[in-house]
Amino acid sequence: MKSSDSISLGPGAEFDIVRRMLARWGSLAKGIGDDAVVLPGAPGRMVVSTDASVEDVHFRRDWMSHAEIGYRATAAALSDLAAMGAEPVGVLLALTLPERDVARVEEIADGIGDCVGSCGTVVLGGDVTRGEKLALAVTVLGTAQEPLLRSAARPGDRVYVTGRLGGASAALRELQAGREPAGKSRARFVRPVPRLRESRWLADHGCTAAIDISDGLVGDARHIAAASGVAVHLRQESVPVFDGATGRDAVAGGEEYELLVTCAGPLDVAAFEKRFGVPLTEIGGVAAGEPDAILTNDGTRVAAPAGYDHFSAS
Amino acid sequence: MKSSDSISLGPGAEFDIVRRMLARWGSLAKGIGDDAVVLPGAPGRMVVSTDASVEDVHFRRDWMSHAEIGYRATAAALSDLAAMGAEPVGVLLALTLPERDVARVEEIADGIGDCVGSCGTVVLGGDVTRGEKLALAVTVLGTAQEPLLRSAARPGDRVYVTGRLGGASAALRELQAGREPAGKSRARFVRPVPRLRESRWLADHGCTAAIDISDGLVGDARHIAAASGVAVHLRQESVPVFDGATGRDAVAGGEEYELLVTCAGPLDVAAFEKRFGVPLTEIGGVAAGEPDAILTNDGTRVAAPAGYDHFSAS
Repeated sequence: MKSSDSISLGPGAEFDIVRRMLARWGSLAKGIGDDAVVLPGAPGRMVVSTDASVEDVHFRRDWMSHAEIGYRATAAALSDLAAMGAEPVGVLLALTLPERDVARVEEIADGIGDCVGSCGTVVLGGDVTRGEKLALAVTVLGTAQEPLLRSAARPGDRVYVTGRLGGASAALRELQAGREPAGKSRARFVRPVPRLRESRWLADHGCTAAIDISDGLVGDARHIAAASGVAVHLRQESVPVFDGATGRDAVAGGEEYELLVTCAGPLDVAAFEKRFGVPLTEIGGVAAGEPDAILTNDGTRVAAPAGYDHFSAS
Repeated sequence: MKSSDSISLGPGAEFDIVRRMLARWGSLAKGIGDDAVVLPGAPGRMVVSTDASVEDVHFRRDWMSHAEIGYRATAAALSDLAAMGAEPVGVLLALTLPERDVARVEEIADGIGDCVGSCGTVVLGGDVTRGEKLALAVTVLGTAQEPLLRSAARPGDRVYVTGRLGGASAALRELQAGREPAGKSRARFVRPVPRLRESRWLADHGCTAAIDISDGLVGDARHIAAASGVAVHLRQESVPVFDGATGRDAVAGGEEYELLVTCAGPLDVAAFEKRFGVPLTEIGGVAAGEPDAILTNDGTRVAAPAGYDHFSAS
């Protein structure tokens, strides 16, 4: 994806595919046309992350459309910028395309374009290659004045979560059982919304540590605990549960792409919900102690479920 | 690859693999441990590119060791920074790992570490996922004061190439025929050297347009011609041919990772060779005219071979 229009593209099947994607993106693609992209100058520090979505690991092709595959892979990667409180500058794509999907390139491009457009960002470049399984590795670039770090939680902090949890997990359970999930929970799985604007609001209002919930609430709280050297206490009864999901979905389900944040002072949850139409809920607190995530239910400690792990998931 | 040491890593097979890679890299890994990496401030403009290497598309596992697979994928991506005259800041990896390669992670890491170390850069982060084919998408980040652009060639420029061409193509032919290539040409294929220091010398000495030769000399000259709106004339008899390669290998073979550059004035090729131990050869010139690469042999125009195209290659 190293050229931007017909005159600057060479011959060959790869370029044909790139052309077709660029035709779908229009002004959503920028700066493409060289060996690498030169980023526009931007204030703040550059933040970058790479995230791969692989057929039969992160998704199955019979679960979602090609547009949804493109959208979801892009959203999952952009969510890592949200977890840093960063504003996106653009994305780069490494698309591995089986022969049978060549005819569907426009649909994949539409899903990617839909996501970058709704997140106010652009496609900066990439690479297209053949392969047996459809895969999309998305590199996201952003800038942040004060990045939100996993290591910044301190004893005494409050713990908040955006949105309602468990919907993606509930949908995944239905899909794995060969059933069609309810529309709303299906959308939570195939069309996650990176909390980019919400994340910058949280950073502006005093949050210091953040993570996006991709490995499950407890698993990701444990990441913050480990990186910050603190104990993160979570009250299961306070965790907002997505309609149709179980309490276990909410505390253990992955692929949420909601944000778990810590903050020294209280946050104005009503102002947040009014602004974004998404709840913000205080679900626990940070204490000194052995680095771990501690889950309680009405004051009684309950066994923390294992983290959601793509790699060992079948 | 979002965590840097044992205390900040959560459980799970993905983290085990990341830990094993980090153990091999030591100080060659930097800033790992969050949802995304915050880049150190650096002068110049940020330059970024993504390049994927996929089993059975870019390499076959019986052709090279796991260390060579890691090295080569990383070198191919870093070569795009050389083509921009950029200094590397670091790389991000999206590794897709079949079950049977899990035991070989250290070898893959060693090859990646070998390449980033010899290029004076570091691993900044990444992502590890399961998959059926071994694949490594490498995102490279760098900075350049004055990026070398494909679109900067002007009529009257001279055209130069670094190194001797055709070795990788000759090796590939032997490998595809099931024979072991000669050591030197094999090294050209499995262990390409990104011309990073050479590229910055070229930029400092007045070169304006550059491309790395991954699609073949004529094919890549055509990319410069198209992007710059000029005719690029190449004299086949001047092209330096790698020992054991054919003239056709030299003008049409891909995967070279040498640089094709244009420059308004003459370059001190002796000084270049003395400094880098690599030849720099004037092989043609830029003229006004229909954007194309025009290949001549002793003054007679010869048919330009088709570009090297991974995607349609079998």
